[in-house]
Amino acid sequence: MNQSFDIAVVGATGTVGETIVQILEERSFPVTNLHLLASSESAGHSVPFRGKNVRVREVDDFDFSKVQLVFFAAGPAVTLSFVAKASAAGCAVIDLSGALPAAQAPQVVPEANAHVLAGLKKPLQISSPSPSATALAVALAPLRGLLDIQRVNVTACLAVSAQGREAVSELARQTTALLNLHPLETSFFDRQMAFNLLAQVGKPDAQGHVPLEKRLVGELREVLGMPALKVSVTCIQAPVFFGDSFSVSVQLAGPVDLDAVNVALEAAEGIELVEAGDYPTAVGDAVGQDVVYVGRVRHAVDDTSELNFWMTSDNVRKGAALNAVQLAELLIKDLL
Amino acid sequence: MNQSFDIAVVGATGTVGETIVQILEERSFPVTNLHLLASSESAGHSVPFRGKNVRVREVDDFDFSKVQLVFFAAGPAVTLSFVAKASAAGCAVIDLSGALPAAQAPQVVPEANAHVLAGLKKPLQISSPSPSATALAVALAPLRGLLDIQRVNVTACLAVSAQGREAVSELARQTTALLNLHPLETSFFDRQMAFNLLAQVGKPDAQGHVPLEKRLVGELREVLGMPALKVSVTCIQAPVFFGDSFSVSVQLAGPVDLDAVNVALEAAEGIELVEAGDYPTAVGDAVGQDVVYVGRVRHAVDDTSELNFWMTSDNVRKGAALNAVQLAELLIKDLL
Repeated sequence: MNQSFDIAVVGATGTVGETIVQILEERSFPVTNLHLLASSESAGHSVPFRGKNVRVREVDDFDFSKVQLVFFAAGPAVTLSFVAKASAAGCAVIDLSGALPAAQAPQVVPEANAHVLAGLKKPLQISSPSPSATALAVALAPLRGLLDIQRVNVTACLAVSAQGREAVSELARQTTALLNLHPLETSFFDRQMAFNLLAQVGKPDAQGHVPLEKRLVGELREVLGMPALKVSVTCIQAPVFFGDSFSVSVQLAGPVDLDAVNVALEAAEGIELVEAGDYPTAVGDAVGQDVVYVGRVRHAVDDTSELNFWMTSDNVRKGAALNAVQLAELLIKDLL
Repeated sequence: MNQSFDIAVVGATGTVGETIVQILEERSFPVTNLHLLASSESAGHSVPFRGKNVRVREVDDFDFSKVQLVFFAAGPAVTLSFVAKASAAGCAVIDLSGALPAAQAPQVVPEANAHVLAGLKKPLQISSPSPSATALAVALAPLRGLLDIQRVNVTACLAVSAQGREAVSELARQTTALLNLHPLETSFFDRQMAFNLLAQVGKPDAQGHVPLEKRLVGELREVLGMPALKVSVTCIQAPVFFGDSFSVSVQLAGPVDLDAVNVALEAAEGIELVEAGDYPTAVGDAVGQDVVYVGRVRHAVDDTSELNFWMTSDNVRKGAALNAVQLAELLIKDLL
């Protein structure tokens, strides 16, 4: 396949957008022309790609017919403003914002439901799920056939980088202030984030669920192809810059064979299984890596029909940018 | 009750021991003479009590017949070395080390199973459970009668202070080094604790469970009086100095009425229920307080038979020192 493509990245100056550009280069994605797009505020900046600085232009003025594929790595509002224009111009869309309904743009994680792509009709629109759903789908996919999964219980400890650069610098600023016994100032977070855990990421609805948690449940069910799966999730904000960590408990119909689980995880795409006794951490293992790290695979204390494990994942790479580029690689192989 | 007592605190120079002394003063516990004891290394230090500095003496030389009540706030080894001597001398024992078997010294949390004390025979020996079990028992006790609890799933995010002063200073040291771009040094923790989460607190057995997790399950079942309760727990070490946080999911036989749950929690001893939409944090709410803070009380997304909530507790106070002093208050009321 010697074909090469013109690509656009919307939201190119954001953490995820920049990482998409970096991964396109790392994986030698066949790019002829790369168009980096952003809002008027960010236009004018430039992002390095293959040794050159590529200038970021305003998305509003962009002619999408110039490209065959566009990544939407900005917020839902930006996707909703331009996706129709992009599709009308005939280019394939990979959206990372969660703005598009499943019926229009299915959620896909290559390791879990790549088969969905074969059924797509043009104009091609695909969603890359939220970082948490993506990482969990990678870890649970190889267990689907092996185990009769009744219920998944997750506490997701999220890195502040998922909230963007402001959140990262506020964690650093708050931490420095506290260590120097200076008064704490909060602006991005509504309270102390340093040396603390926040139980709620986003604004809860009347039922007490935040959009992030509801999105995760829906995406996980869709990607795993288990629409009735019971998922209980709490997303908390941890004082960690990069890398998400997950405490996962999977309830099964009967006793689970841990050896079989380990063999399945060991053999699975996109997973690094950490040996028993040890465990992965966000900072020490996941950050900067393309795989989801899984460890502490065990039964619950006194209950062999409950499987517990711990996992960590780079929320910006595998959780978002890498998954989107993997989707693009599958698209150009079979569909473009 | 004008009676007053001679009290000994073993492990008086530790975080919990010092806090026991502080709480005895705060709650005007009827103390005639306070004997502060520790290992030979710590003997000679002094701890403030009622405006005086009380000198800490060696536990080895202590004559337990001088006191009617002793708190064991050091490690299990210390308790095991001196508990027989203390009981033989006729003084009541409150152990915080988890060293004594349930048959010998029942685990008690006043808000959950104070009735157990009435059945005790002399020599009185009582265990104050681990901080996590104590906090969880306080929160779950008022729900026992209300709900048909099938299973409890907990991710406990523990503060480093539970590991003692060394752990606290290493988190501060690591954080400062990272913010100043100095090389990271680890001594107490086996890897980076700052801006990271460690999935394992202690050394796991062949089944992958750490003693802390097994202890928590056993203690929670005993204190709640639910020996068959299914408990799935993961204890993780968070980069937080003080205050434990818990993501809790309770599975019930049928749909749960959230209003009834809120009413029960609101009315319960030792609980501060945070209003819907808000949530408590370790640093902002729990630390320095005597109650367990509960918030984010909600159903699981799309599953009304699963109750989710978040809770925070001061691991040194309510989790240990305060619970022990509360036990002492009940002892002197009815049993001494």
